[in-house]
Amino acid sequence: MPRFAAKIEYDGTQYVGYQVQPNGWTIQAAIEAALVKMAKLPKGEHIPTSCSGRTDSGVHALGQVIHFDYPAPIKADNIRRAMNSLLDPSIRFLEVVEVDEDFHARYSAIAKEYIYRVDTQQYPDPFKRLYTLHHPYRYNLDNMSLALQAVIGEHDFTSFCSTKTDKEDKVRTIYQAEIIENKAESELQFRFYGNGFLYNMIRILVGTTLQIGDGLKKANELQRLLDTKNRKEAGPTAPPQGLYLHYVEYLNNPFRI
Amino acid sequence: MPRFAAKIEYDGTQYVGYQVQPNGWTIQAAIEAALVKMAKLPKGEHIPTSCSGRTDSGVHALGQVIHFDYPAPIKADNIRRAMNSLLDPSIRFLEVVEVDEDFHARYSAIAKEYIYRVDTQQYPDPFKRLYTLHHPYRYNLDNMSLALQAVIGEHDFTSFCSTKTDKEDKVRTIYQAEIIENKAESELQFRFYGNGFLYNMIRILVGTTLQIGDGLKKANELQRLLDTKNRKEAGPTAPPQGLYLHYVEYLNNPFRI
Repeated sequence: MPRFAAKIEYDGTQYVGYQVQPNGWTIQAAIEAALVKMAKLPKGEHIPTSCSGRTDSGVHALGQVIHFDYPAPIKADNIRRAMNSLLDPSIRFLEVVEVDEDFHARYSAIAKEYIYRVDTQQYPDPFKRLYTLHHPYRYNLDNMSLALQAVIGEHDFTSFCSTKTDKEDKVRTIYQAEIIENKAESELQFRFYGNGFLYNMIRILVGTTLQIGDGLKKANELQRLLDTKNRKEAGPTAPPQGLYLHYVEYLNNPFRI
Repeated sequence: MPRFAAKIEYDGTQYVGYQVQPNGWTIQAAIEAALVKMAKLPKGEHIPTSCSGRTDSGVHALGQVIHFDYPAPIKADNIRRAMNSLLDPSIRFLEVVEVDEDFHARYSAIAKEYIYRVDTQQYPDPFKRLYTLHHPYRYNLDNMSLALQAVIGEHDFTSFCSTKTDKEDKVRTIYQAEIIENKAESELQFRFYGNGFLYNMIRILVGTTLQIGDGLKKANELQRLLDTKNRKEAGPTAPPQGLYLHYVEYLNNPFRI
């Protein structure tokens, strides 16, 4: 069976997350239902998909990558068009390419970029409430940017990982960590690029860095937390709706865009 | 009782429209419930509000104006802050000013601007699906812009008014009508500025003009429809989610922003 990789984007608002689960409608369930419909499979059969990394309820994606084996020969772009016709408009297939059978959306990924958007207006923008964290406090951008330098490089991120994780190895490498201020939009945008991220890692990093910006924690707090390796000492987990899986990198990246 | 005018914005997605009605939650109902809570009125009493013009289910506002008489002396900006704390984040009070008792949000208005956003990408952008009309067809912008010239000025807009209206007088004046193309965003934005608009008038004008852009109707069609005065000959009513009440003008405009 030919294997395909798809780059997709979605508004996660109405889903209980990416991964199939019994207590609600997920992005994976919507995609697999559409694939079955497209392939006209007999009842009970299905086309399993794998993603580069699951996203939680309310988290969005601009460049999630999935792969699946399709049960018949088909042109990649025909999958894109058929899926975009079948899916709810909250999910869009941006690009589909045929890949080698050893391509795996998760295991072949070498790096990922997440962004986190913060609305800094006094009262939340009605049109951004599902797409940003509302954080209306005066902030010190220099302190936050300086603090983030500490997490760049290879570190044990135990302090920035949900205790609900099943991962033993907490060492990850962050290549880039920065905050872009958009004054015209009253927005802060965090960007993290790294070789992998632990459960809730970005959201805990954002929640803690914002406390540094607010003056509730010192500028060297991220360095201290890397050393203490204790989730309880870090700041709160920022809410899901500000988070976007922006980009996934592969060694021989199969996507053009 | 002091009278206040408020400039508000809202995401209309989850409401059945602006005006209070029995079959669903409305923006007016949300605002009046918050006003009652703020004023700590006895059960059964309420604070009636009037708006510059009601908006339909799914229609948004960036600069709707309302007025109401508040049952106690209070600073205008305290109303803004209290209401923004009490209201769902889908509604935001942008500015509140105290006005003369002869100010009326609807009767004192001398002009209004509406915008209508169109997503022209091949498949709908998941993050714009609640905020634009998706219209993925190749269009002739010059033909549309030329066609819109015909509606500028004072005309009988019977062809562009829902037959469900209760208004007898169908004569209105449009001061400006234009389309702004944003290629980077794959968006068209219609702008209409006029002294008043009939029920569904913008949405029928947009639906008809898009048919001209698609080549389904001739460039002189809007002129012909003004002459025939027959709703049945005009194009479809464009859907609500692309429409925004952008601005309301008053003779001595009480708002600073």
